[in-house]
Amino acid sequence: MNSETFRKYGYLAVDWVADYLRDVEKYPVLSTSLPGDIRNRLPQNPPEAGESMDRILRDFEEILLPGITHWNHPRFFAYFPANHSGPSILAELLSAGLGVNAMLWQTSPAATELEEAVMDWLRQALQLPEEFRGVIQDTASTSTLCALLCARERCTRFRTNTEGPGGWTGEKPLRIYASRESHSSVEKGVKIAGFGSRNLVTIAVDEAYAMNPMELERCIHRDLEKGFVPCCVVGTVGTTSSTAIDPLKSVGEIARRHNLWFHVDAALAGSAALLPEIRPILDGVESADSLVFNPHKWLFTNFDCSAFFTRHPDILMGTFSILPEYLKTDMDRVVTNYRDWGIQLGRRFRALKLWFVLRYYGLQGLRTRLRDHLAMAQEFSNWVQKSPLFELMAPVPLNTVCFRFNPFRSRGASVPESRLEAWNKELLDKVNASGRIYLTHTKLSERYCMRVSIGQVQTRREHVTEAWQLLQGEASALVYP
Amino acid sequence: MNSETFRKYGYLAVDWVADYLRDVEKYPVLSTSLPGDIRNRLPQNPPEAGESMDRILRDFEEILLPGITHWNHPRFFAYFPANHSGPSILAELLSAGLGVNAMLWQTSPAATELEEAVMDWLRQALQLPEEFRGVIQDTASTSTLCALLCARERCTRFRTNTEGPGGWTGEKPLRIYASRESHSSVEKGVKIAGFGSRNLVTIAVDEAYAMNPMELERCIHRDLEKGFVPCCVVGTVGTTSSTAIDPLKSVGEIARRHNLWFHVDAALAGSAALLPEIRPILDGVESADSLVFNPHKWLFTNFDCSAFFTRHPDILMGTFSILPEYLKTDMDRVVTNYRDWGIQLGRRFRALKLWFVLRYYGLQGLRTRLRDHLAMAQEFSNWVQKSPLFELMAPVPLNTVCFRFNPFRSRGASVPESRLEAWNKELLDKVNASGRIYLTHTKLSERYCMRVSIGQVQTRREHVTEAWQLLQGEASALVYP
Repeated sequence: MNSETFRKYGYLAVDWVADYLRDVEKYPVLSTSLPGDIRNRLPQNPPEAGESMDRILRDFEEILLPGITHWNHPRFFAYFPANHSGPSILAELLSAGLGVNAMLWQTSPAATELEEAVMDWLRQALQLPEEFRGVIQDTASTSTLCALLCARERCTRFRTNTEGPGGWTGEKPLRIYASRESHSSVEKGVKIAGFGSRNLVTIAVDEAYAMNPMELERCIHRDLEKGFVPCCVVGTVGTTSSTAIDPLKSVGEIARRHNLWFHVDAALAGSAALLPEIRPILDGVESADSLVFNPHKWLFTNFDCSAFFTRHPDILMGTFSILPEYLKTDMDRVVTNYRDWGIQLGRRFRALKLWFVLRYYGLQGLRTRLRDHLAMAQEFSNWVQKSPLFELMAPVPLNTVCFRFNPFRSRGASVPESRLEAWNKELLDKVNASGRIYLTHTKLSERYCMRVSIGQVQTRREHVTEAWQLLQGEASALVYP
Repeated sequence: MNSETFRKYGYLAVDWVADYLRDVEKYPVLSTSLPGDIRNRLPQNPPEAGESMDRILRDFEEILLPGITHWNHPRFFAYFPANHSGPSILAELLSAGLGVNAMLWQTSPAATELEEAVMDWLRQALQLPEEFRGVIQDTASTSTLCALLCARERCTRFRTNTEGPGGWTGEKPLRIYASRESHSSVEKGVKIAGFGSRNLVTIAVDEAYAMNPMELERCIHRDLEKGFVPCCVVGTVGTTSSTAIDPLKSVGEIARRHNLWFHVDAALAGSAALLPEIRPILDGVESADSLVFNPHKWLFTNFDCSAFFTRHPDILMGTFSILPEYLKTDMDRVVTNYRDWGIQLGRRFRALKLWFVLRYYGLQGLRTRLRDHLAMAQEFSNWVQKSPLFELMAPVPLNTVCFRFNPFRSRGASVPESRLEAWNKELLDKVNASGRIYLTHTKLSERYCMRVSIGQVQTRREHVTEAWQLLQGEASALVYP
């Protein structure tokens, strides 16, 4: 494709995205496709001859678009916000145009040095310890896996890396601690790194779904008595279900006392710590060994962009370093080669979009948007609390409201959990099928509930209001059919 | 950023990329930045107030661009080709605009079903076994790690996942086999998965740098005698140093006999198997358990896009599956949820660019370009063989030529290896410093050599000719200063 053809279709693609950003509300948030709908419209065999870009773009709209769930719809309240923004999309375009691989400093010094710079900007913006060094990973799953591997290697003096299970010989298993509400990626990482999921000790939570540090202490003592080797604790700031905030100070003190690697998973909530009034959620991070938060979740930066920080870049590099002849460069002693800071060798130029976003909005602009989201979540939470049809299921410290339909609660009636679950599931399916909003569910203390997660760059009060009205309307229809 | 502002700067960004594609030859291939050059021009602190996009784009050009190594320059002959192409960049733009997360089928049915479809197109195009199912990973490092984890779990009956080292109790370590020339990601994966690098058995290679299957058999027998548990063998099709091709048929037979997981690493070379005349490099893949090849290396698709295939999706899912309440959907029994096919939970919509590339070029268009690259490599190899100043260091089955400056060889003079290395390093640094071309080095049988890897979408014969002329000129200057 020559330069002029690229320009022509590039304009068309930009127009498409610009129109999409403007008109996204016309689409149903959750795709109404049924399994196979898209696949059945695609040829079974690859094309032998080339096709025109006009036809490809037409099929993009006609075939694929109906199968898209619109993560950037202002009425997308499911899972977590999947932020993109204009400046971030522009940076992704330029990054794709350059097509550099940021595996070594030499393979694009600007990619490495910009990554060092913007990661330090984020460190400052979140008031993380000065010793923290940052690297962009793809996802929090990967970042947390990196932390677990560092913990494993520090604990076994890098002998697991070389000897495998033999590195642990003569000792009982290493143990990992995380709250019952911690993200599934902790268990996944525990399995991948070879700890074994039965060595993940899930710590009980308090009534706000935050880790109970006394329980942590108790579990560690019990393990020590049994001869296990406590290795790592993951503290969660902003759990996936309800954005509960583990008490980092207490957890950190326990971690220090028992010489555990202390990893903080602030995947969603880290962004909110840009706000001085919210920053206390990170108090205690001074004693952390590593932290992850995802600018692609709530900092208006396209997926994927996971910010991983550690005060031990030496251990991180010691865990991942490989140096075959074909990757050696003259600069290896004086520069950062991010290939040794994670699992993958090849790396996209992801610092660019973070730079675009931080500069375009500035910290002030980011804070304004974050505050708006927090205020909307508080308002939604107030509506729920005042409603006779609904019940708030967890505190709302940040942008996520967990609630359920429980219409007879105010009359003191006790409805079996299974029936409440069925009602709520029915309600959730109804509002999602409307195409107007998209919510997802979770369970808290075994009780089924709906979640509203507010954080899209385009979401305004009117969108949250509409969600609430829709929920009320459908709920009323269930009560008075 | 509103829609019209996005459109305005989107056009500018498209113009920039279009001009870049046209004018990339005006830049030095390898950045001439020194360590700190870029970082020193960036503010130490994040901006409080937002900045204009004009200023950001200006800084992109003025500050960052001098620090870019141009991976898509037609005279980039280093490492491996980092293919992008017009249609692929357009797809990345649209994918960034949509910003969907393809973690579950429900979170965008089109993303999952398109991925199933294009991965099957690739399977057909490479004539891989019908039972193979595909998933897009980020890099071959990740794909190979997935294969190693599947091997570990199959071998320990999923007990490592649950019990960790306890899953291996009573047995000596699991052993992994790969040729001495296999990629560093194999060792990295062996460490991450907890096998321990000393349990990676490196198999000797023949004079073409391909795995010697008799050596593999011998090592397995020796391990069995010692009580080790052979677990997995990685066959490489197209080694990183010299694109050597392990004999998959023999390796596969040995793997079957000893019940090893047989993973094929065809990261670079897989693309070439689109050509009927090259497809024999994959003969024997019928007995493989998994295979990886990277369309982002030599199939004109933007990084990242690594195609991972396995005949055991059940084992892959069994290795990675997690199902917290908040990720459950009604469709889980009838659809593919790719979150369980790899390490990360979140996933970019990467199938789109593969679809654009396969359709825009068609298999015919891709084959034409691949054939051109192979022909250029053969021609370069012929030049080397005819030159009195240079020496060919390995066979050239594909797109990579390993050679070295050895001016007195024809006169029968024996120069110490250390001196040859110094000369070649000097020559390499000189041609790279010219900004005209960028080559990297490797070592084969402990002998330092230069590599020319040909595969950029824009590379034509004139670019290869220029590389050869430059090398000849600088080499002559060394001989007759």
